[in-house]
Amino acid sequence: MFITFEGIDLSGKSTQAKLLYQHLKKSGKKAILVREPGGTQISEKIRDILLDKKHSKMFSLTEFLLFSASRQQLTEEVIKPHLKKGYFVICDRYYDSSTAYQGYGGQVDMKTILTVNKIATNGLKPDITFFIDIDMKESAARRKSMGKTKDRMEQKKIKYFNQVIGGYRSLSKQYCWRVKLIDGKKNIDEIQNDILNILKKKSKHV
Amino acid sequence: MFITFEGIDLSGKSTQAKLLYQHLKKSGKKAILVREPGGTQISEKIRDILLDKKHSKMFSLTEFLLFSASRQQLTEEVIKPHLKKGYFVICDRYYDSSTAYQGYGGQVDMKTILTVNKIATNGLKPDITFFIDIDMKESAARRKSMGKTKDRMEQKKIKYFNQVIGGYRSLSKQYCWRVKLIDGKKNIDEIQNDILNILKKKSKHV
Repeated sequence: MFITFEGIDLSGKSTQAKLLYQHLKKSGKKAILVREPGGTQISEKIRDILLDKKHSKMFSLTEFLLFSASRQQLTEEVIKPHLKKGYFVICDRYYDSSTAYQGYGGQVDMKTILTVNKIATNGLKPDITFFIDIDMKESAARRKSMGKTKDRMEQKKIKYFNQVIGGYRSLSKQYCWRVKLIDGKKNIDEIQNDILNILKKKSKHV
Repeated sequence: MFITFEGIDLSGKSTQAKLLYQHLKKSGKKAILVREPGGTQISEKIRDILLDKKHSKMFSLTEFLLFSASRQQLTEEVIKPHLKKGYFVICDRYYDSSTAYQGYGGQVDMKTILTVNKIATNGLKPDITFFIDIDMKESAARRKSMGKTKDRMEQKKIKYFNQVIGGYRSLSKQYCWRVKLIDGKKNIDEIQNDILNILKKKSKHV
């Protein structure tokens, strides 16, 4: 089963991806947790280019092609081989991130996004996607309380992130059978319960 | 005018690109010379990933998407702005390299190659392309005499490079109005003359 987590930074998606991974491992399941961009030696190098604040001149389409290259390597080197061996593969971000960020946020046209997403994944789709929804006010409050500095992607403007959030919400309607909107303002345990309940309906192995 | 040079490594394409650049500058023309992958701060970082011998696990499609990302950044940041200002832009490799290497060599399907080439360049095409043709025997002899070590791309098998060369030859037929096959076994001056003669027929400004 291929499970992905989506949302803006500080939404709690990485925490929830990790909790789900730990839950599955504790129950004796075969599971791996990977992140995007990254998850392979080559993809982590691509991640460094994407997040480097010195690269302020990067075009949205360059960004998108870099994410796609990282995704292709991760998909073929790690995700597909593990799915074949019967693993639960949990991925912190996958192609919905490109649709939301480079598409809705960066204004790369949607036809290009859909075409390259399909190419970069060789048609692989998550079985289920959890979009942890928080707004920019909540994200800013969390950043302040954590004192977290911003990488290149996080330095984009508020308007950009509002478009990203709107994009995610729209995806959860367009692909309602796959992309599940989770209220990110609930506490960590409540969110984990919501996620497990949805997963249990989908698979008796969770 | 947008002029590109293509061919396998050690074919002499970089030398000829440089000679043409110097010729144009000497004649008082506005000209720039760039290389692929590379030519911008971001694209050079992508180049490092592509050529690093440690990345032996890189998939052809990942490679192609990385070249495409580098190409998009170079096209928008450097090539298009200079073409707009009336420069001769000379590029050592452009999208024909992806068609020949990742397509004919790496067996990425041709529809994917053509689709992503168009996306990565936003439809920009060279006005003329010089394919400097040498075979693998000649390339190996030159490498030996120069004592040049191989980067990740150059470490691929002979069969791969024969497919690349076959691909270039095929492109010079398919796009005969744009891709000019130049015999790379001639000496440097003869090749430069061939190139200048072709260019002079194309533009009275050369």
